[in-house]
Amino acid sequence: MRILVLNGPNLNLLGKREPEIYGTRSLWDLENDLQKAFPDVKLEFLQSNHEGALIDALNKCMDGMMAGVVINPGAYTHYSYAIRDAIAALKIPVIEVHISNIHAREEFRSKSVTSPVCRAVFAGAGLKGYELAIRFLTENK
Amino acid sequence: MRILVLNGPNLNLLGKREPEIYGTRSLWDLENDLQKAFPDVKLEFLQSNHEGALIDALNKCMDGMMAGVVINPGAYTHYSYAIRDAIAALKIPVIEVHISNIHAREEFRSKSVTSPVCRAVFAGAGLKGYELAIRFLTENK
Amino acid sequence: MRILVLNGPNLNLLGKREPEIYGTRSLWDLENDLQKAFPDVKLEFLQSNHEGALIDALNKCMDGMMAGVVINPGAYTHYSYAIRDAIAALKIPVIEVHISNIHAREEFRSKSVTSPVCRAVFAGAGLKGYELAIRFLTENK
Amino acid sequence: MRILVLNGPNLNLLGKREPEIYGTRSLWDLENDLQKAFPDVKLEFLQSNHEGALIDALNKCMDGMMAGVVINPGAYTHYSYAIRDAIAALKIPVIEVHISNIHAREEFRSKSVTSPVCRAVFAGAGLKGYELAIRFLTENK
Amino acid sequence: MRILVLNGPNLNLLGKREPEIYGTRSLWDLENDLQKAFPDVKLEFLQSNHEGALIDALNKCMDGMMAGVVINPGAYTHYSYAIRDAIAALKIPVIEVHISNIHAREEFRSKSVTSPVCRAVFAGAGLKGYELAIRFLTENK
Amino acid sequence: MRILVLNGPNLNLLGKREPEIYGTRSLWDLENDLQKAFPDVKLEFLQSNHEGALIDALNKCMDGMMAGVVINPGAYTHYSYAIRDAIAALKIPVIEVHISNIHAREEFRSKSVTSPVCRAVFAGAGLKGYELAIRFLTENK
Amino acid sequence: MRILVLNGPNLNLLGKREPEIYGTRSLWDLENDLQKAFPDVKLEFLQSNHEGALIDALNKCMDGMMAGVVINPGAYTHYSYAIRDAIAALKIPVIEVHISNIHAREEFRSKSVTSPVCRAVFAGAGLKGYELAIRFLTENK
Amino acid sequence: MRILVLNGPNLNLLGKREPEIYGTRSLWDLENDLQKAFPDVKLEFLQSNHEGALIDALNKCMDGMMAGVVINPGAYTHYSYAIRDAIAALKIPVIEVHISNIHAREEFRSKSVTSPVCRAVFAGAGLKGYELAIRFLTENK
Amino acid sequence: MRILVLNGPNLNLLGKREPEIYGTRSLWDLENDLQKAFPDVKLEFLQSNHEGALIDALNKCMDGMMAGVVINPGAYTHYSYAIRDAIAALKIPVIEVHISNIHAREEFRSKSVTSPVCRAVFAGAGLKGYELAIRFLTENK
Amino acid sequence: MRILVLNGPNLNLLGKREPEIYGTRSLWDLENDLQKAFPDVKLEFLQSNHEGALIDALNKCMDGMMAGVVINPGAYTHYSYAIRDAIAALKIPVIEVHISNIHAREEFRSKSVTSPVCRAVFAGAGLKGYELAIRFLTENK
Amino acid sequence: MRILVLNGPNLNLLGKREPEIYGTRSLWDLENDLQKAFPDVKLEFLQSNHEGALIDALNKCMDGMMAGVVINPGAYTHYSYAIRDAIAALKIPVIEVHISNIHAREEFRSKSVTSPVCRAVFAGAGLKGYELAIRFLTENK
Amino acid sequence: MRILVLNGPNLNLLGKREPEIYGTRSLWDLENDLQKAFPDVKLEFLQSNHEGALIDALNKCMDGMMAGVVINPGAYTHYSYAIRDAIAALKIPVIEVHISNIHAREEFRSKSVTSPVCRAVFAGAGLKGYELAIRFLTENK
Repeated sequence: MRILVLNGPNLNLLGKREPEIYGTRSLWDLENDLQKAFPDVKLEFLQSNHEGALIDALNKCMDGMMAGVVINPGAYTHYSYAIRDAIAALKIPVIEVHISNIHAREEFRSKSVTSPVCRAVFAGAGLKGYELAIRFLTENK
Repeated sequence: MRILVLNGPNLNLLGKREPEIYGTRSLWDLENDLQKAFPDVKLEFLQSNHEGALIDALNKCMDGMMAGVVINPGAYTHYSYAIRDAIAALKIPVIEVHISNIHAREEFRSKSVTSPVCRAVFAGAGLKGYELAIRFLTENK
Repeated sequence: MRILVLNGPNLNLLGKREPEIYGTRSLWDLENDLQKAFPDVKLEFLQSNHEGALIDALNKCMDGMMAGVVINPGAYTHYSYAIRDAIAALKIPVIEVHISNIHAREEFRSKSVTSPVCRAVFAGAGLKGYELAIRFLTENK
Repeated sequence: MRILVLNGPNLNLLGKREPEIYGTRSLWDLENDLQKAFPDVKLEFLQSNHEGALIDALNKCMDGMMAGVVINPGAYTHYSYAIRDAIAALKIPVIEVHISNIHAREEFRSKSVTSPVCRAVFAGAGLKGYELAIRFLTENK
Repeated sequence: MRILVLNGPNLNLLGKREPEIYGTRSLWDLENDLQKAFPDVKLEFLQSNHEGALIDALNKCMDGMMAGVVINPGAYTHYSYAIRDAIAALKIPVIEVHISNIHAREEFRSKSVTSPVCRAVFAGAGLKGYELAIRFLTENK
Repeated sequence: MRILVLNGPNLNLLGKREPEIYGTRSLWDLENDLQKAFPDVKLEFLQSNHEGALIDALNKCMDGMMAGVVINPGAYTHYSYAIRDAIAALKIPVIEVHISNIHAREEFRSKSVTSPVCRAVFAGAGLKGYELAIRFLTENK
Repeated sequence: MRILVLNGPNLNLLGKREPEIYGTRSLWDLENDLQKAFPDVKLEFLQSNHEGALIDALNKCMDGMMAGVVINPGAYTHYSYAIRDAIAALKIPVIEVHISNIHAREEFRSKSVTSPVCRAVFAGAGLKGYELAIRFLTENK
Repeated sequence: MRILVLNGPNLNLLGKREPEIYGTRSLWDLENDLQKAFPDVKLEFLQSNHEGALIDALNKCMDGMMAGVVINPGAYTHYSYAIRDAIAALKIPVIEVHISNIHAREEFRSKSVTSPVCRAVFAGAGLKGYELAIRFLTENK
Repeated sequence: MRILVLNGPNLNLLGKREPEIYGTRSLWDLENDLQKAFPDVKLEFLQSNHEGALIDALNKCMDGMMAGVVINPGAYTHYSYAIRDAIAALKIPVIEVHISNIHAREEFRSKSVTSPVCRAVFAGAGLKGYELAIRFLTENK
Repeated sequence: MRILVLNGPNLNLLGKREPEIYGTRSLWDLENDLQKAFPDVKLEFLQSNHEGALIDALNKCMDGMMAGVVINPGAYTHYSYAIRDAIAALKIPVIEVHISNIHAREEFRSKSVTSPVCRAVFAGAGLKGYELAIRFLTENK
Repeated sequence: MRILVLNGPNLNLLGKREPEIYGTRSLWDLENDLQKAFPDVKLEFLQSNHEGALIDALNKCMDGMMAGVVINPGAYTHYSYAIRDAIAALKIPVIEVHISNIHAREEFRSKSVTSPVCRAVFAGAGLKGYELAIRFLTENK
Repeated sequence: MRILVLNGPNLNLLGKREPEIYGTRSLWDLENDLQKAFPDVKLEFLQSNHEGALIDALNKCMDGMMAGVVINPGAYTHYSYAIRDAIAALKIPVIEVHISNIHAREEFRSKSVTSPVCRAVFAGAGLKGYELAIRFLTENK
């Protein structure tokens, strides 16, 4: 079973940026932790600041090789209708994850243009949110 | 460890109402499944159509006996500032759960007045969402 | 044939409150008049100021014993998405009635969150509106 | 007793257009049915796609010959302040009727500029709504 | 002279919740202090988290036994048109009190649906606000 | 010198409708009074409830025979972009007149879609407004 | 093959009004050019300033004789829900044409209430837009 | 008969500022012209850039010496609720005048907070507007 | 103990303007009554129609001589961010008072830009509101 | 004659994604068809999911080698002011094409930030829309 | 070369008010520093809390003696269309300066009604902003 | 001392695009001029049309080598919350520069999503704005 874990803009800064919100573990740490937690799942990781690169990655999932996608679109959550369209084009389940509770921050963060086309949305569970999302994809039948 | 699982209006209809959205298992089934899944946690369940009853239950958690709350406020999600205040008064973590992806339905469902004061929000994971919320409360340290 | 006639908050004041808008007959008078006008229909009446009590009553109709519901949600009309969900869960026809023409009063009264899930809406016909609603339920096939 | 029954734009298509919403009986059928149902009332019928023609007809009612008006302004409901003014100028009761429940359709249909100056509004009762409106005019004293 | 002092949702938490905003005295303390400050007035106290219970209490004032009402509707202030209607039905003066300055907090707290039908509104004077409200009712002729 | 005086929907009711707002003189009286007040100007009068007829009349002015237009578009003021386009197409000055002060009435009356393309707007001067408008057209050089 | 070409208010002024926007050819020229460009298609032309007349013409297409409609609703584009309903009632394809790019002009022109029920919308192609619309109707299978 | 002619901020620049909009005659010229045009009326003139000074002047009219006021509030038109209150306190008629057609300029200029409490509003008639306003005050009985 | 009592625009008209709203006592009466009611407090009074004069007075309070301010900003309440800034700069408590219940009047009066920076807001208590405000400042510790 | 045909995000999925909306022909098919239909025009094709790449391509057109551009900006239509600026910088005509009728879909799709700076907009004509756009560029003089 | 440096309401409090935002140097210090920094420029300084006084000062610049204006309108920035008009009337460049970054504070501060008519806007550069503004005026040719 | 000068989309067109707004000097000229003006500062320049590339560059500044950033985000100013997040993650001062006065152009340009997280914003000073921004970074201590 293969699952794509996509991280959007500025998530490469994990551990360095606003640790009181995002924690102190790096993206590298997160990815290692997740792979260890799911030894039977083949996780593929991609982080990019480029909207187009995220869309490219989602488009490639149309080849049917992935069983699901976990995506944290970062700030693109709030305006990227292009990423939304790329998600909507997929038939496999896509789970949107946010490390912080986006509803408890600036007004603009409470609007998500990608949520309506995702299967589920997990916000505020910290890095743990990624693990729960993968668990949902692997256990939900 | 004790956790309160609160369900709001119309969730007593689980299994009977719009099964294509909410599934076919009853609230009774859900509560049994959850207790079985977490044998070491003392789960307390309450469902009520009465906004005041939900607030009463949240107020009682101020006695410090509960380690956390999982709440699905049903339609009160969209306008009950009174439930919001009751959640905000608590120091223990409160997780908001929605069975369906509320962002993929009518416009009014995408506004939550309770989310900003919850620790995390899980939407769209079906009944599985309750399990993930309890897992988050028990495993997150 | 059984029909439930539900009245929401402050309708217990009928006859006492703003008689130039609501008339001088009491809720008791209204209920008696209606039962007399439809001797072959078993009318069940409930008035409550409690949103939860109205939802409880609507939920009970899922047992299939009622042929229809006539509801005047009073001020809950304007914000109770919880009542809306309770109506939407029913398969029997629900008719929304307002004694006064809600469109001719304060701005906020012209917004109804329950109307979209009712079968029909009658506003401004005074107490006569209840009678017309029951007539519609009994004669419409 | 004379009552004017006014139908606005596209209601000449009754029976031909979207029968799942508007039914299969023609405007001609409707008018015949209504006259038969009220043998003691002199009903006058007018249908026009022209906003001005509807206003002309309403203006003529200022001669005091009509006891009331039943009007389905069709789509003019949503923007014709000119028809609204014509209704407001009348001293006899005007009942607004909509065949479908306009609150359960596109957003723009839930705004009525004519409702605030009508005596009552009946929506969603199908063709039966016209009958109930006439009944209200004839029985209400 | 009898005056009803009504407190809405979460005000039972006075002294326990956010003491930097609401102070450290309990609701019980407040009620005792008020009765002592006005020995010649018969104060009746009610606190409830239930919207319907607050409406019931307001409805009872229509019996003419109360000379006035002091109400802190808590979060219901911001959306309960049902409480608004119950206040509007009364002929005796109703004073709305808020412990904190609701205009200095979250955006949603600056909108009150009950204020337009109250006689006066006092916000931000702490527990002292209740005393001033009762003073206004007793001294204003 | 020729001037067209156009009156829109329901202005045929002048003298009969809401005399406290519109006065007691009829449209016929108004037209006679105006012609007498300006014996050297050839006034042409048209009143119609039909939006199209008003546009037809404005279109005809493109023949260059008229020196100006005085128009009271009635309720079309608030939504007829078609009349607006017809006015904008003219090179001669067009004066918009309203008998009552439209800013002192319902909210919707304070929005005019035709005003931006008129030369001047006179509101609230009663029937006198027509006279002032013609005076402006004849004296302004 | 028969196609109806409908032009709305003020389009009779083509060639005379704002030639920098609408060009110098008259409506008559346009209609002749179009018929010459499509010798095998029977084009029927109608221009009217009357909303009702445009609706009448659209209603007549329900007789099944037309293969399609090309409509430039002029300013009615921005508010005529009645024309929208008339278009929606048709089963044949309707193409909306605007001579100028309505998105590059006043704000109000960028809102079209008729576009959602048309098959396609062509704006900004000048008189050429009509030709492309007919081509689309004749070549698209 | 005495009439106060009030001019607000920047109208002292008349003749110097944007002559294509405001013309080339100075405020001094305007005041002289007006007095000459109405030899039998005692006109009193005041121009001030100070909102408070305009309010002071309006307040003084409560002494009953003035028969009416002509006011061009300049940009205060768009936000000075304080001037609005000062006008509303007067029992004599107040006419609002604007030299240019404020509806044909920037969006913010089409909102007037003073118009609802004036008797009439004349906009776009150039300096002539002042003369028409005085004429209205002197001739209207 | 010194307290500044500031009154904004048009409050010099007290007793003369709309006595059904503002009562019949003059500003002079009010100031005398207040001083008599608080013989041990040195009250300083200022009324001005000039926004700048009110700001000047507030700025002077930065010298630390005043123990508090009672301000009725009149219509400046609704838009004067400059007065808001002047209040926010003070460290002493400022109480905002309105004679009428501003929430029960025109829509625009329910928005206060000064309230968020005041300590408390009293509205609707008539002239009594000033007394209660001073009482609050003198008794609150 | 050279024309650039630009396709934005997710249009590489043509034929694979939602065929009931976008048809079954691939982007490759479309490009071949277009080149065949215009043998005398040199068409250059580019598709990219990267906003920046689309801007780069538009910027290159400033070298004067292209006679026009046909662009389907995909979802960037709704928010890319950067692409808008790139189009506005060009002096050659740019035609915006949408395969589906964007006005008949989700609300957000009816807002285009690029349309105001394009010469023309064709929406809803399917793949045929590209052909009509090229035809317009080659035949329009 | 002469330049006017205008400061609006509450800027007389510089150094005393919220030093963490506005710094600890007084307005007097600022003015001295600026004159020293530009020994060859004749700087004229004015601070006023009175909107009218600021307009008066701007109006005087129409005499052509000033080469430019640096203005910090304080809170008038957000609503004074009267100051906006006074700036727009000038032909010399006007630079708007804000000590703090107004976009990083309360929502209402991010709206400036004066910016659209200024040549440039500098915000957030502290007192240094005034120096940069003068430098721009003196060095920009 | 090192400073990064970032230019966003379409700024590579400087000198070629709308010279009346942006001047005639190229980006190359600008960069040379700036380096010459600050010989003691090491300026690093980057221009990109790619949102992701701008974020990459900002992310790299977290290595602590830069003393500050001058950024002109071009049209990304108006919607790129991703660039906003990248700026907010930095501890060094970031100055936002716009060549033109963005408040004096289209409505959408007056909204900046990046300004709230920048230290200062300079708009409308032409190319000179970059110089002033660097001067601010080098002189401000």
